[in-house]
Amino acid sequence: MENCFALKGNIIWSRTPQALVFAPQHYAVCENGACAGVFAQLPERFASVRVEDLGQRLILPGFVDLHLHAPQYRNAALGYDMELLEWLDALTFHEEARYGEEAYARSAYHAFTQALLCTPTTRACVFATAHTRATLLLMEMLEQSGLETYVGRVNMDRNAPPELAEKDAAWALEQTEDWIERSLARFHRTKPILTPRFAPSCTPELLAGLGALRKRYQLPVQSHLCETIPEIEWVRSLFPDCADYASVYERFGLLSGDTPTIMAHCVYLSDCERQRVKNAGVFIAHCPSSNTNVSSGVAPVRSFLDDGMRLGLGTDVAGGEALNLLREASHAVSVSKLRRVLLGGKEGAVSMDEALYLATRGGGAFFGSAGAFEPGFVFDAVVFDDERLRPAQELTLRQRLEKLFYLGDEREVQAKYVGGRRVL
Amino acid sequence: MENCFALKGNIIWSRTPQALVFAPQHYAVCENGACAGVFAQLPERFASVRVEDLGQRLILPGFVDLHLHAPQYRNAALGYDMELLEWLDALTFHEEARYGEEAYARSAYHAFTQALLCTPTTRACVFATAHTRATLLLMEMLEQSGLETYVGRVNMDRNAPPELAEKDAAWALEQTEDWIERSLARFHRTKPILTPRFAPSCTPELLAGLGALRKRYQLPVQSHLCETIPEIEWVRSLFPDCADYASVYERFGLLSGDTPTIMAHCVYLSDCERQRVKNAGVFIAHCPSSNTNVSSGVAPVRSFLDDGMRLGLGTDVAGGEALNLLREASHAVSVSKLRRVLLGGKEGAVSMDEALYLATRGGGAFFGSAGAFEPGFVFDAVVFDDERLRPAQELTLRQRLEKLFYLGDEREVQAKYVGGRRVL
Repeated sequence: MENCFALKGNIIWSRTPQALVFAPQHYAVCENGACAGVFAQLPERFASVRVEDLGQRLILPGFVDLHLHAPQYRNAALGYDMELLEWLDALTFHEEARYGEEAYARSAYHAFTQALLCTPTTRACVFATAHTRATLLLMEMLEQSGLETYVGRVNMDRNAPPELAEKDAAWALEQTEDWIERSLARFHRTKPILTPRFAPSCTPELLAGLGALRKRYQLPVQSHLCETIPEIEWVRSLFPDCADYASVYERFGLLSGDTPTIMAHCVYLSDCERQRVKNAGVFIAHCPSSNTNVSSGVAPVRSFLDDGMRLGLGTDVAGGEALNLLREASHAVSVSKLRRVLLGGKEGAVSMDEALYLATRGGGAFFGSAGAFEPGFVFDAVVFDDERLRPAQELTLRQRLEKLFYLGDEREVQAKYVGGRRVL
Repeated sequence: MENCFALKGNIIWSRTPQALVFAPQHYAVCENGACAGVFAQLPERFASVRVEDLGQRLILPGFVDLHLHAPQYRNAALGYDMELLEWLDALTFHEEARYGEEAYARSAYHAFTQALLCTPTTRACVFATAHTRATLLLMEMLEQSGLETYVGRVNMDRNAPPELAEKDAAWALEQTEDWIERSLARFHRTKPILTPRFAPSCTPELLAGLGALRKRYQLPVQSHLCETIPEIEWVRSLFPDCADYASVYERFGLLSGDTPTIMAHCVYLSDCERQRVKNAGVFIAHCPSSNTNVSSGVAPVRSFLDDGMRLGLGTDVAGGEALNLLREASHAVSVSKLRRVLLGGKEGAVSMDEALYLATRGGGAFFGSAGAFEPGFVFDAVVFDDERLRPAQELTLRQRLEKLFYLGDEREVQAKYVGGRRVL
């Protein structure tokens, strides 16, 4: 059979947030880029497919990073004794300004793309900068990598350093539309996403224009929401006639629509905002490493899960220190425990199983049917060789997964498939 | 000159908790196992010493792990959806019981020792089990490794599974004394330390006997104190005539004395306990990873530092998931930030510089003069090759240190010296 193959090994994926499936020595079958199912024995109709026997290795769905900043990759792990707004001014904006220079952008984005390729991530939603040329360069590299991504040219027309600020809303919108047209014409697996950086860096005119572009091009949206208290207060002073932070995006048609919106962080949603975020079908990108590093706080992910909100993980590099979503997922568990024990409430912690769900199927839903080995889902798979983590030790599959979860990194990623195509 | 050499490179160490010294392209001189100083140019008297030029590498003092459990190494990263007391019963005690079997102990302790050798750690205080033979085996391996350690044969004569519990206090004390004699006779850099596991697993008779052994042999002590609320309540019910947890150790002469005591965790010291712990000169082993993984809480390390308490870091493997003290130190920063932001108090966060201090000089003080490149200190050094962490990037020394701090692991450890002797 053409375009059909099977991976044999120890296959693990999330059926629900709480139900992890362990399928030892099973076959995951890929047919035309999609998962045809996971089987203990190959069914008759797949009897002749090519089987790659991966022995005792672990095979998980591809991981999905709902929020990261490509031009901050070089700044990973820098400046974490600062808090968010100070850190943005001192480090982030300065670094992003350099992407106006093509040679710099080319070299830095190449390093970023290669690094991302080596992680367990198969799909990602990425912030670039307002530099159209550099953004297209990044998209070209991501397209070549085989990863599936959304990339946003980042809009800022105020409260940004002069090297980064777009000169006015009209210019920004014209440039953005030009970039959208060019991206749609050039790339297949690298898609444009509307990306107002965050409310404080955009004028109402710019936000309104982006809302119009959303309708015209039917594009999804990504931005930041309720990351820190000082940021929320700043938004209130900039948009005095909006009731709260979420209503800024709502007013301009950027929260709900026919296409989904990702809002990173959501650490401090009010009850009212939370209900509207849920009703709008917004995907929350939970970024525990970043929220820790720049002292933002801990989002109430346990209750987001209990409420059935749409939710995935974001490394938020360079607020987060690493592109490794295993690390991010284990941090999601850690910060939920500290939130529980420090706040002393009844809200439980997030389990490993749930964090793995968020890292795969939770975020995968943004891409349609992704992040699980269910029939009809895109065939994204990561093959982990966890030999380093269990020298001469007999462990159950669950225990091996636990060691991978807390200790695994790119050293364990042995192969990676995106939509049935091997990319690593 | 005999027994004298210099390492040339980028030398970094803590002068105080807040003052990190950066000495780019300096010489750290070792004379008879001790640091003779760090110099921009080699002084005349060292003009003829052998110089190892380490180019652009980073040279830091050896790291000191004040608290870890060697027989739990295999359990690292397992069972972290449980809380402390449940986790001890379900996983830890079961694993430790296996060290009664010599072949198992030999293989597992070998893996542990090799792994520890590859980390930045040069000195450590280690819990073994109550098995004398296995404990001596571990000490033999650590002696061979060249690391400087204290190792404790762990006493438990109640509230332990039958395979681990010593049959009564008299037997436990006799065995412990025999083990002390044998250790003192056999090893030079691997020293015995009295190790009542924690108050709940020891009868008053056993604790009293250990207090007597402390005086007789002038040995230091290590144990656990105020790790979780349920544990504190348990201690109260077991020792109804002791005012608090710390007073159990005080009563039996195990908190203060001519030799120092290490108490791991101290997450929930009362104000009164805290003052007594300080007055007794106890070293607190702060174990942020463990306190997170088994949901214990966050120790008030910022205020411990401000109060000038004696303080270092412990990986507490397997409550902690990794032997890497860089990771532990970055977790010390992270949990302090979350404590600050979640509790909303005025207590600040712990900075990177302070966490590095704790990981080196803070814990090093337990070993005398260790953990810094100051004249007269033992010459413990770790050479880090951080090339992986800064592909084609120009960074300041501080920025390189930041990347190492948040992202470094055993891959970066290129060489290691303990008391002037190269061990890796």
